[in-house]
Amino acid sequence: MTSEHPSTPQGPIHRRTPEGDNRERLVCGECGFINYVNPRVVVGAVCTWEDKFLLCKRDIEPRRGYWTIPAGFMELRETMMEGAMREAREEADAEIEIDALLGVYSIPRISQIQMIYRARLLSPDVSAAEETQEVGFYSWDEIPWSDLAFPTVHWALNHWREVEGQTNFAAFTEGPMGV
Amino acid sequence: MTSEHPSTPQGPIHRRTPEGDNRERLVCGECGFINYVNPRVVVGAVCTWEDKFLLCKRDIEPRRGYWTIPAGFMELRETMMEGAMREAREEADAEIEIDALLGVYSIPRISQIQMIYRARLLSPDVSAAEETQEVGFYSWDEIPWSDLAFPTVHWALNHWREVEGQTNFAAFTEGPMGV
Repeated sequence: MTSEHPSTPQGPIHRRTPEGDNRERLVCGECGFINYVNPRVVVGAVCTWEDKFLLCKRDIEPRRGYWTIPAGFMELRETMMEGAMREAREEADAEIEIDALLGVYSIPRISQIQMIYRARLLSPDVSAAEETQEVGFYSWDEIPWSDLAFPTVHWALNHWREVEGQTNFAAFTEGPMGV
Repeated sequence: MTSEHPSTPQGPIHRRTPEGDNRERLVCGECGFINYVNPRVVVGAVCTWEDKFLLCKRDIEPRRGYWTIPAGFMELRETMMEGAMREAREEADAEIEIDALLGVYSIPRISQIQMIYRARLLSPDVSAAEETQEVGFYSWDEIPWSDLAFPTVHWALNHWREVEGQTNFAAFTEGPMGV
């Protein structure tokens, strides 16, 4: 690595408020490129087969070995529902049918939002796919509550329970201000 | 600008599928940096004062000179509702109180999602702020329908109308698959 051949392009490093903007961004002093960094969107679903919940034991960090619902980062050029369906397929080989938006969670500390749907499995044929060690079906009382991967998994499962059988309800948030 | 001093850092330029991933990303061949590009989140609100809707005439591209509801890109470290309140303040000097989630729109063609709330203005004191040429209050029949900036402004206003007076309703999407 020499100064003539910088081999680790870092992108813009100057902290500046672009014209017409009102907060600092990382900008390139030469070309003017502005590196807007945006909150990230997680899409997922509480998926059930009869009276059981589909859970996946994570095979990746963070929280490897802990249980979660199928969920992950939304990709470009997909809708939120398509993303949730894709995650179910990628993590558990599961085909699902979404029937309601369950939770709309803001997690400002990590600049993340989560859109969690309610879905039914189209078949109980699931299997541990990429990023998953093990999949399982759990009744409400069997859910491994102390081994769930994230607070939002708790929220989504509890919100599912709260609107069980209802068809037209407002999606849950974490509270009036999202906290 | 010389080759010894490349002045326009472009970031990673190699198209590769990172290990454990399942689609191509732009990666740096030297440092391994992966440039994940994610969908962007717009937050906004249909804001009313008595029976009138707050609209803002855009002073920026795209759609400069056309009317919109206060809305814009969500920032880091804020909740979605905080973002919608901030946008009302930034575009119309408006203080609002959010009371429901109205629309959850996916626009996969441009990899954008929009979270549109229903809100009441806390006072009719508004003014054209940054990015806005003019603000105005319009009754339903006075809304300049043919001069609205984006399809989602149409959707949000019509969805507002559809649930007028209701307090617990499922947020609208653009259709079963988000289109």
